[in-house]
Amino acid sequence: MVYAAILGFGTVGSGVYEILRKNPSSIGKKAGDTIDVKYILDIRDFPDHPEAHLFTKNYDDILNDEEVSIVVEVMGGLKPAYEFTKAALLAGKSVVTSNKELVATHGTELIAIAKENKTNYFFEASVGGGIPIIRPLNQCLAANEISHLHGILNGTTNYILTKMFQEGSSFEDALKEAQDLGYAERNPEADVEGHDACRKTAILASLATGKFVDYNDIPTEGITKITQTDVIMAEKIGYVIKLIGSAEIDADGKVNAIVAPRLVSKTSLLSDVDGVFNAIMVRGDSLGDVMFYGRGAGKLPTASAVVADVIDAAKHFHINKWVIWGEAESGLMNDPETASYRYFVRTKDASLAEKFPGAEEIGGADGEFVFVTAPMQEKDFKAQVGDNAYIRILP
Amino acid sequence: MVYAAILGFGTVGSGVYEILRKNPSSIGKKAGDTIDVKYILDIRDFPDHPEAHLFTKNYDDILNDEEVSIVVEVMGGLKPAYEFTKAALLAGKSVVTSNKELVATHGTELIAIAKENKTNYFFEASVGGGIPIIRPLNQCLAANEISHLHGILNGTTNYILTKMFQEGSSFEDALKEAQDLGYAERNPEADVEGHDACRKTAILASLATGKFVDYNDIPTEGITKITQTDVIMAEKIGYVIKLIGSAEIDADGKVNAIVAPRLVSKTSLLSDVDGVFNAIMVRGDSLGDVMFYGRGAGKLPTASAVVADVIDAAKHFHINKWVIWGEAESGLMNDPETASYRYFVRTKDASLAEKFPGAEEIGGADGEFVFVTAPMQEKDFKAQVGDNAYIRILP
Repeated sequence: MVYAAILGFGTVGSGVYEILRKNPSSIGKKAGDTIDVKYILDIRDFPDHPEAHLFTKNYDDILNDEEVSIVVEVMGGLKPAYEFTKAALLAGKSVVTSNKELVATHGTELIAIAKENKTNYFFEASVGGGIPIIRPLNQCLAANEISHLHGILNGTTNYILTKMFQEGSSFEDALKEAQDLGYAERNPEADVEGHDACRKTAILASLATGKFVDYNDIPTEGITKITQTDVIMAEKIGYVIKLIGSAEIDADGKVNAIVAPRLVSKTSLLSDVDGVFNAIMVRGDSLGDVMFYGRGAGKLPTASAVVADVIDAAKHFHINKWVIWGEAESGLMNDPETASYRYFVRTKDASLAEKFPGAEEIGGADGEFVFVTAPMQEKDFKAQVGDNAYIRILP
Repeated sequence: MVYAAILGFGTVGSGVYEILRKNPSSIGKKAGDTIDVKYILDIRDFPDHPEAHLFTKNYDDILNDEEVSIVVEVMGGLKPAYEFTKAALLAGKSVVTSNKELVATHGTELIAIAKENKTNYFFEASVGGGIPIIRPLNQCLAANEISHLHGILNGTTNYILTKMFQEGSSFEDALKEAQDLGYAERNPEADVEGHDACRKTAILASLATGKFVDYNDIPTEGITKITQTDVIMAEKIGYVIKLIGSAEIDADGKVNAIVAPRLVSKTSLLSDVDGVFNAIMVRGDSLGDVMFYGRGAGKLPTASAVVADVIDAAKHFHINKWVIWGEAESGLMNDPETASYRYFVRTKDASLAEKFPGAEEIGGADGEFVFVTAPMQEKDFKAQVGDNAYIRILP
């Protein structure tokens, strides 16, 4: 028998409990041993829960119980998740998490502690919800040097952008609908401003390079300024708009990472990823392009990724499976101002395009003109574009 | 140092050699030890190869060399691959393969032998070329009961069907072009008749159920009878045609598996998988739909999947990582004649549709009429359809 404790009985935590209770024999077969939940930690009371005896408010109950070998941290946030995780790893317990904030902030230290203590820190569910991406990047693509990855990593913003394209909704109306359906929070800033996608991009970039990429070093723009003119003109030239987290690794191993709305050609499979779905396109030197697609959020999809990690933790008790990435390396990140893009520009200034050699005018709507530039460096572009709206084009 | 031997220096074998020689340090880091190629077995001579001393024609050189812990079997076919694999596993060596024929035929026995001898038989490259699918099905989706999987598993046929849709080519012209480009063999039967996809479907179905599914039990139809009328009429109702290998697992754990051309709705992401690309859509009870997409064939994509397995084998020396599936179980497969589909029927008989209650006429071309039936069992459908052409519709 392998005993697990669940920290946080919110959406994901209750999903993990549900899956472990629903498929115990098939999970036990895959894990090589039966997995049982011994504790659930939550500050709230659940007196009517059928297994109310499992609940505790005292983390020491879990930490000091030598029978508990797996701690499932699905509380979210940094405090107290960080100290709880660290203490569990130092005690030789495996920790499984969906907490992207914690992984993106303290992952390097926690991965190193896991190694030193011959245990594991697994976080498949921190990126892409239920989509298998962490393990494939680590294992299946191990024979490849990854040259870039482009991900639709946030379901809320993808839902909003899909509505804007398919139904002509405004950003505000699409956001309101997403909120009404429970796809967006009442305070949607973390999603619509790209912060959520930024944490996930940092995790993927760290995996792809094997070195810690700090999310603070990734320029991040949200989708709040996208208008119907953008949508109409993008469609006209065969593109959709997606919030893309990208990391490109050049021949010297240096990284360009950015989270921003991008024009994505309709010839790319990424353009067909609609609604709350997520997808990550990865290019490897041997493999070419692979894409992973699925539900990037939600109770059971995310919980199923957590439980897959629990199974793997049970199979690797006291064996550190992998060191996913090491310390940050100075000079790893290229200066974002030197990154080069083609830009889609929307402006009221009929003569703006003239400032951009090679720019191609593509029309206009609602008193605005739209043009597309030739590839140029960010700093040169910004020196000319002023306050006009623009969207970078995904190559 | 971990020593590997490559059996078969054809397309995939030379790709494996190339990748291992190209990225030794990053591969070594991921494997935890340097991986070196000690032998290459081939019946041909390669006197001009820069490492001509590696070549041998005598398998005993490899089998009896205790330093060789990993055997890469990329010869294809059953003979002598089966006996070479068995001997290597019995000697405690790990075997990594891309040989779908062998896995689909003798996989159950070889998996069991690997377990008994505390070693591993890995075959990520046997399905989907470079696409990670075997490991995700085993690990990442371990917390899910899989209810179905639908795969575009053969690049040659997908290339042909894409040409027929995008350029209005006939089957014969598209096949010829695929042959000229090297995407199809001079004798294309294994691809166009669905045999290749059938082996891969059997492997995936075995993985999804945990029990051996014999490819001989999977009804298999190819794409040679698809005409431009099919293409035009499918487009008219919002579908494309893809060769799909599918396995559906019902609530009792029984399996319906079939390989056949299917009408795939343009609202499905599978419909956007074009050219030589492959994709596998999998539905899990917790996860919902996930899709894996990439190059299903080719030297380096396939070799990169092989090398990922080599790395995993190096990390699990003398530890059996998993028993992927067990023995066949009688009664596992549902009778294919009781499977239910909607059918797309093309006929010269203007009154045929009347024999199918609920059938919907959708028009015609070139003196043929096309209609779509309501869902009905295969045996009832076949009793009425006679010699007329039909295509099953993917739900």
